[in-house]
Amino acid sequence: MPTPRLVVERAVLDANIRRTADWARRLGLDLRPHVKTHKSVDLARLQLEAGAVGITVATVGEAEVFAAAGFDDVFIAYPLWIDDDRAERLRRLAGTTRRLAVGVDSVASAERLSRLPVDVLVEVDSGHHRTGVAPPDVARVAERVGDRLRGVFSFPGHSYSPDATTSAGADEAGALAEARDVLAGGGLAVTVLSGGSTPSLATSDAEVLTEVRPGVYVFNDAQQWELGTCSPDDVALTCHATVVSHAGGRLVLDSGSKVLGADRAPYASGFGRLLDHPDARIVLLSEHHAVAEVPGPLPPLGSTVRVVPNHVCNAVNLVDTLWVDGASWPVSARGRND
Amino acid sequence: MPTPRLVVERAVLDANIRRTADWARRLGLDLRPHVKTHKSVDLARLQLEAGAVGITVATVGEAEVFAAAGFDDVFIAYPLWIDDDRAERLRRLAGTTRRLAVGVDSVASAERLSRLPVDVLVEVDSGHHRTGVAPPDVARVAERVGDRLRGVFSFPGHSYSPDATTSAGADEAGALAEARDVLAGGGLAVTVLSGGSTPSLATSDAEVLTEVRPGVYVFNDAQQWELGTCSPDDVALTCHATVVSHAGGRLVLDSGSKVLGADRAPYASGFGRLLDHPDARIVLLSEHHAVAEVPGPLPPLGSTVRVVPNHVCNAVNLVDTLWVDGASWPVSARGRND
Repeated sequence: MPTPRLVVERAVLDANIRRTADWARRLGLDLRPHVKTHKSVDLARLQLEAGAVGITVATVGEAEVFAAAGFDDVFIAYPLWIDDDRAERLRRLAGTTRRLAVGVDSVASAERLSRLPVDVLVEVDSGHHRTGVAPPDVARVAERVGDRLRGVFSFPGHSYSPDATTSAGADEAGALAEARDVLAGGGLAVTVLSGGSTPSLATSDAEVLTEVRPGVYVFNDAQQWELGTCSPDDVALTCHATVVSHAGGRLVLDSGSKVLGADRAPYASGFGRLLDHPDARIVLLSEHHAVAEVPGPLPPLGSTVRVVPNHVCNAVNLVDTLWVDGASWPVSARGRND
Repeated sequence: MPTPRLVVERAVLDANIRRTADWARRLGLDLRPHVKTHKSVDLARLQLEAGAVGITVATVGEAEVFAAAGFDDVFIAYPLWIDDDRAERLRRLAGTTRRLAVGVDSVASAERLSRLPVDVLVEVDSGHHRTGVAPPDVARVAERVGDRLRGVFSFPGHSYSPDATTSAGADEAGALAEARDVLAGGGLAVTVLSGGSTPSLATSDAEVLTEVRPGVYVFNDAQQWELGTCSPDDVALTCHATVVSHAGGRLVLDSGSKVLGADRAPYASGFGRLLDHPDARIVLLSEHHAVAEVPGPLPPLGSTVRVVPNHVCNAVNLVDTLWVDGASWPVSARGRND
C-alpha cells in the first residue's frame, strides 16, 4: 500500500475508548465525544457501544452525515449563524433525530434559533477567549432562546498549554457554575452543564459538569504527548511514511503538511513526532516533505517510519480513508465544514 | 451557498496566468507550472492554453489524475522512492504520456529509476536545504541514472523569507550552473535546468535556467502578499466566511484551519489576511474558528468576509470544489499524496 497513509492500531483505539468511557461512568458524567476528530461513522459507533450518550459535531454538514447514518442525539457545539439555508437544514435534521441541540453566543442568533425546533445551549467563555459570553452576561442571550433552552457549554481550549492542563478544568467548572447560578437567579433553569477538552479531561469537576465532550482522546497525537496528557503508548493513529532522502544527513519523509496538517502550537517541539524515534524532531515541513533530525543512524531509504501528527483532527480531515488493522474505514464527514 | 467556501475571481486568475506566461515567453523560459497549487484539470488547461509547455506535479497520484485527463508532458519534481508499486504505476504512466520525468537525489533511487522508461532530472540543493544533492556531488547520482538523464532541477524554497526573495534566485542560478558544469566535466550533458518558486520568479536567471516551475502565482495568497511578491489586487482566491460571533469585541469567522490550513510561516503576521480589511489580523485559528482583531467597526453578524489563506496550496487541498464565477470546478487531485 502506498504511503503516506493514516493507520490506526485497533487495540490502542479500543483501550482509549474504553478508558474514557469507564472514567465518565465512574464519575457520573455523560460522555458526548466530539466526532470532528475522526469524522468516522464506524468509530463513533464504537464510542456509543462503550457508553457515550450521543455525539458532538462542529458543523451542520457533520450533523447531516452522522444523522444519515442513524445517530439520533447530536449537539452542534458551535455558535452557528442561522441563515435561511441553515434554518432549513436544521429543520430537516430535527425531523430525523431524537435530540438535536445547537450552540449560541449572541442575542441575534438566539432570536433566530428560538424559531427552530432545536434544543439550545448557550456558550460560555471559561478562559479560552475564542467564542462564548462571559458568565455574568449569560442571561442576556439565554432569555432570548425561548423554551428550548437546555443548558450552557464551554470549551476550555486554553488547556492546550503546558501550564494550564489542570487549571483550565477549574476555570471551566467555575464559569459553568457561575453561568448556571446567574440563570437560576433570573428564573432560567438549565439541566446540562457541558465542558471538556482532552487535556483538561482528567480535572473535569464532576460536581459541576453533567457532560464532557472530548475528541482527541480516541487517537491522541503529538500535542497530547508533549502536553503530558498521554504517553506514546496511547497514540492510536500514525502516518506511515516512506524515507525518500537522506539529504544533508537528515531524514526526509513523504509525509508533508498535506497529510499531517501544518499545525504547530507554540509549545510544540516540531511539526510532529516519530513514534519509534522519540528523540527525533521534525524541523521542516512542506507539502510533501517532513525533514527530521535524528540522533544516531538514519532509518534506510525506502523504509517505513511512523509519524505522529501534531494535531490529529486536521490530519484525519486530509484523507478519505483510515486503515484500521488492514481494513479501510471511510472518513465519512471529511471536508464537511459547511 | 454555505460558507466557508473557496471562491476564485476569474478575471484576476486570468491576469495572473497571462502575466507569468508572457513573462516566460519574453525571457525564452519554458513555463511548467506546478499544479499541486490548484490540483484542477480545468485550471491547468488554461495554463497550457496560455503557453505552458507541460505541468509539474509532486506525486505519482497527481500525475495519474492529470495523465488520465490528457496531460501528456508531466514532471514529478520529487525524489520518489521507487518500490514495486510505484515502479508499476510509473510504467503505466509512461505508456500514456508523451514525456514523463521524475526527480532523484540519491544513488539508490537513481539505480532504481534507471530501469524505468522515464526521463530523470537530478535534484540540486540551491540553499533551501530540504532535498537535493550539493552541486559538487551531482555526478555521483547522475552517473547512475543511465541514458535517460535529461537535466537538473532545484526548488529555491528559501525564497520564502522577506530577506531572500531576490537572493534565492541568484542562489538557484549559481547552483544549477555549477551542477551543469560539473556534469559536463564528467561527460554528462544535460539540456534542462529547471528552477523557480513564486517568490523568486522575478529574479530567475534566464541566462542559466531553461525552465521555471512556479505554482502559487495563479492564485497568490497571504504569504505572497506579506513577502511583497504580489499586491492584494493580485489575489485570485479567497475563502468566503460568515461572521458567527463578536465575542470579546473581535471578529469570529467560520473559516478555521480545516478550510484555510494551519500554515503560519515565521514571517506571517497571523493565520491569514482579510482582503477587504488589510489592517485586520487573524490572531487565533482553530478548526472552525478564525478570530480576527479588526480596527474600527466589526462587520456585522451574518455578513460575509473574504479571507486570504496564508498558503493557498494547503487550503485548496482541503476542499472538493472551487467556485469560479459561480461555476464549480472540481479539485481533481485533492488528497492524492500517494
